[in-house]
Amino acid sequence: MGNAVLLATRAEAMSEWAEALRALDPSLEIRCFPDVGDPAGIEAAVVWTEHDMAELRRYPNLKLIVSMGAGVDHLLRPPGPPPGVPVARLVDARLTQGMTEWVLLNVLRFHRQDPEYRAQQAARIWRELPAPDAAARRIGILGLGALGTAAARALSGLGFPVTGWSRRPKAIAGIECRHGADGLAAMLPRTAILVCLLPLTPATRGLINADLLRALPRGAYVINGARGGHVVDADLLRALDEGHIAGAALDVFEPEPLPPDHPYWSHPRVFITPHAASITIPRSAAPQVVENIHRARAGRPLLNLVDLAAGY
Amino acid sequence: MGNAVLLATRAEAMSEWAEALRALDPSLEIRCFPDVGDPAGIEAAVVWTEHDMAELRRYPNLKLIVSMGAGVDHLLRPPGPPPGVPVARLVDARLTQGMTEWVLLNVLRFHRQDPEYRAQQAARIWRELPAPDAAARRIGILGLGALGTAAARALSGLGFPVTGWSRRPKAIAGIECRHGADGLAAMLPRTAILVCLLPLTPATRGLINADLLRALPRGAYVINGARGGHVVDADLLRALDEGHIAGAALDVFEPEPLPPDHPYWSHPRVFITPHAASITIPRSAAPQVVENIHRARAGRPLLNLVDLAAGY
Ligand SMILES: NC(=O)c1ccc[n+]([C@@H]2O[C@H](COP(=O)([O-])OP(=O)(O)OC[C@H]3O[C@@H](n4cnc5c(N)ncnc54)[C@H](OP(=O)(O)O)[C@@H]3O)[C@@H](O)[C@H]2O)c1
Ligand SMILES: NC(=O)c1ccc[n+]([C@@H]2O[C@H](COP(=O)([O-])OP(=O)(O)OC[C@H]3O[C@@H](n4cnc5c(N)ncnc54)[C@H](OP(=O)(O)O)[C@@H]3O)[C@@H](O)[C@H]2O)c1
Repeated sequence: MGNAVLLATRAEAMSEWAEALRALDPSLEIRCFPDVGDPAGIEAAVVWTEHDMAELRRYPNLKLIVSMGAGVDHLLRPPGPPPGVPVARLVDARLTQGMTEWVLLNVLRFHRQDPEYRAQQAARIWRELPAPDAAARRIGILGLGALGTAAARALSGLGFPVTGWSRRPKAIAGIECRHGADGLAAMLPRTAILVCLLPLTPATRGLINADLLRALPRGAYVINGARGGHVVDADLLRALDEGHIAGAALDVFEPEPLPPDHPYWSHPRVFITPHAASITIPRSAAPQVVENIHRARAGRPLLNLVDLAAGY
Repeated sequence: MGNAVLLATRAEAMSEWAEALRALDPSLEIRCFPDVGDPAGIEAAVVWTEHDMAELRRYPNLKLIVSMGAGVDHLLRPPGPPPGVPVARLVDARLTQGMTEWVLLNVLRFHRQDPEYRAQQAARIWRELPAPDAAARRIGILGLGALGTAAARALSGLGFPVTGWSRRPKAIAGIECRHGADGLAAMLPRTAILVCLLPLTPATRGLINADLLRALPRGAYVINGARGGHVVDADLLRALDEGHIAGAALDVFEPEPLPPDHPYWSHPRVFITPHAASITIPRSAAPQVVENIHRARAGRPLLNLVDLAAGY
């Protein structure tokens, strides 16, 4: 029976992970991809979301796969994880904090007319723009999971009215909750700033397309911190160029890195960060991973288990 | 005895104020400067902070002066208000909300390395910068009044450790409070982002000078939403150019508008807004003004009274 943990990510991150896991459980035998050793010895694989799933099928005693991020869309693509092996993801305070900050920065950037003030500064123009009113600017959040709920709470705490959207019905104090296709249709026309924090699944791929953008009021903003595949780039660019969408903040793209000739780079109303909204900090995330390794050994229910049928 | 209210500010704002006050008390006789009418008829003057105080000495029955803003530094300059007439200022939820948003936007701008990410976008560079850690970035707030306390609470709620500085000792849950010269000296070396929300008084003019900036750690940021007179511009520019201060967000200047040839305009690490952090909304501020007019008539204690000796 295996009792080793395989790590697979970039080399620098691997040593950080190894150190963080060993600090919590010095008895763990840690192997770093591609030094797999005896495949039969591996009981858990802690992998970055782009790791090759076919590789994991070679480990006959694998009991657990852990994604080093909150998203698992890459892991679930064909061929997907070996049948019968559970997949866990990260729900982590530092990840959540990072995304909340990134969302707030971009909501406030648009709410406070920062692009206009930057342009005025470049032209040495001293002109006060109409005072924004947070209470009149409804934020619509797609996805009310770990990240969406935290962003919703923070925005609501700052005085913005917030509507959130999920797959199943939800109730969160102070947040207007909607779900399903009808819920989305009802929410969009009242949304001044749309924030996407959905997982990428067959049901959510391409959701931010021409139809959805048209349903937003003229002058709305789009913020995507989830996955590039949620946005139909050509539709968003057209809506920006027509002035229907007043600005976009994007952290995620398809593909990544964003190709150097992509029109987003030089678009005056697009604000790019390089998939840096929320970065996994091994030291912060390690406790839940060690806990899950212990649980998998003992056959106890896992934390942050992915629903493979739902795709997140 | 007078019973008219004189308004003095820009023409557009004057009609908004008149409407907001009349909506609350239709019996008020409202006059708009310069149509003063009989000076003996004026019991209250509601004035923008740049109104000429010598003018108010001509009104023998004046019982109350109200500033249309939170600051009163302009009103208190020589010759100052007529002796014996109390001065009130605004403490208003919309003003506070606006300043909190502006402070958060600029703290998050610097915390989240937004200037670096904007420069990377302009150069089509896809590069993740080191993940920022709010818990390791202490915010120092100069002034713990209506605006400073609200900003401190919002920043602390987002996970930043906050130290606040006031004239007299204070206690605010979750905020480290310091006061006086010793308190300032103890706070500065631990402050990664300094936010100024002080009133401008003889004691605070020029406070943000070379000595204070040197006491901040290398790479600190400065955010000034209070008054231009708090900052010694030449000292801040030198600290920015030496790289000791990594960036500044400035909403207020001396003089205003900021002259077109001022080096701040084109400085790559300076973010300018045109005294727009927090704009008085007459409809929001009117209730306390009407209440104060009624209190002054009845000889009852006024709201938001300015301490003329302290200067704020
Ligand atoms: N840019 C970055 O740096 C970064 C960092 C971390 C994560 N992310 C992305 O953020 C995503 C969200 O993370 P999370 O931890 O918040 O995920 P989560 O806790 O699993 O929450 C997902 C939310 O989306 C909702 N949802 C899923 N499918 C839906 C559908 N078809 N229609 C409507 N709502 C749907 C879920 O609804 P229910 O509540 O009904 O299940 C849930 O509220 C991740 O999947 C990842 O792709 C990006
Ligand atoms: N940019 C804009 O759009 C805008 C808008 C509104 C206001 N403002 C500026 O913001 C300023 C602050 O407004 P506010 O309503 O928060 O004022 P406030 O309620 O009067 O608070 C002032 C704070 O500063 C502290 N303070 C005063 N003198 C000090 C000194 N010598 N040393 C240390 N601390 C001192 C006070 O200490 P104590 O608590 O001990 O009294 C108090 O905590 C206004 O005066 C105005 O100039 C700017």
